[in-house]
Amino acid sequence: MDNLSDTFFALSDPTRRAILLRLSKGEATVGELAMPFEMSAPAITKHLKILERSGLIRKEKDGQLRRCILQEKPLKGASEWLEHYSHFWEDSFAQLDDTLKAMVGKDHSEEGAK
Amino acid sequence: MDNLSDTFFALSDPTRRAILLRLSKGEATVGELAMPFEMSAPAITKHLKILERSGLIRKEKDGQLRRCILQEKPLKGASEWLEHYSHFWEDSFAQLDDTLKAMVGKDHSEEGAK
Repeated sequence: MDNLSDTFFALSDPTRRAILLRLSKGEATVGELAMPFEMSAPAITKHLKILERSGLIRKEKDGQLRRCILQEKPLKGASEWLEHYSHFWEDSFAQLDDTLKAMVGKDHSEEGAK
Repeated sequence: MDNLSDTFFALSDPTRRAILLRLSKGEATVGELAMPFEMSAPAITKHLKILERSGLIRKEKDGQLRRCILQEKPLKGASEWLEHYSHFWEDSFAQLDDTLKAMVGKDHSEEGAK
């Protein structure tokens, strides 16, 4: 898979997104990451491997422990890809805004004519 | 799967992203979407089903044809999720900027001392 596909795939699971949210607050060991989830160690390890392969996290040895650290680069890449489409929802808002303004304008002119 | 997981999963394939890019330029029939890809009709249909399930596209009947239309809502949802992390790369840029400014400042003061 290409990088962007790896990133989007890694983000397509609520446990992996919860792990990233936890890591956005600071580094954590594998044990600390596993704690809030009712999940077996191999299941958590599998999620961490997918996150690591996509480059969303990296592991660092700290004595006997392995700390996981969030990496922002793939998140930025995914965000930039989505940014290309942002004019779609911005245009929708602008259209809604225009419609509302037109409705308010119409109401005012109707009131004026009364 | 939840909506966000569906969206990120749908985006985790380059063919599906290429289909969305094509649809961002306007509606297209299934045949028109299949044309640029050396792929069987069932393979394209499978990709379209994943995109439809995630809400990224919707199909509309046009006589004998079925037109595909891009839907911005899931893209907006994914973009907003990623937005929460944007301070990470913005902070990194700010830090790099500070480092560069400090380096330039140091060079200038060293030059001044010569």
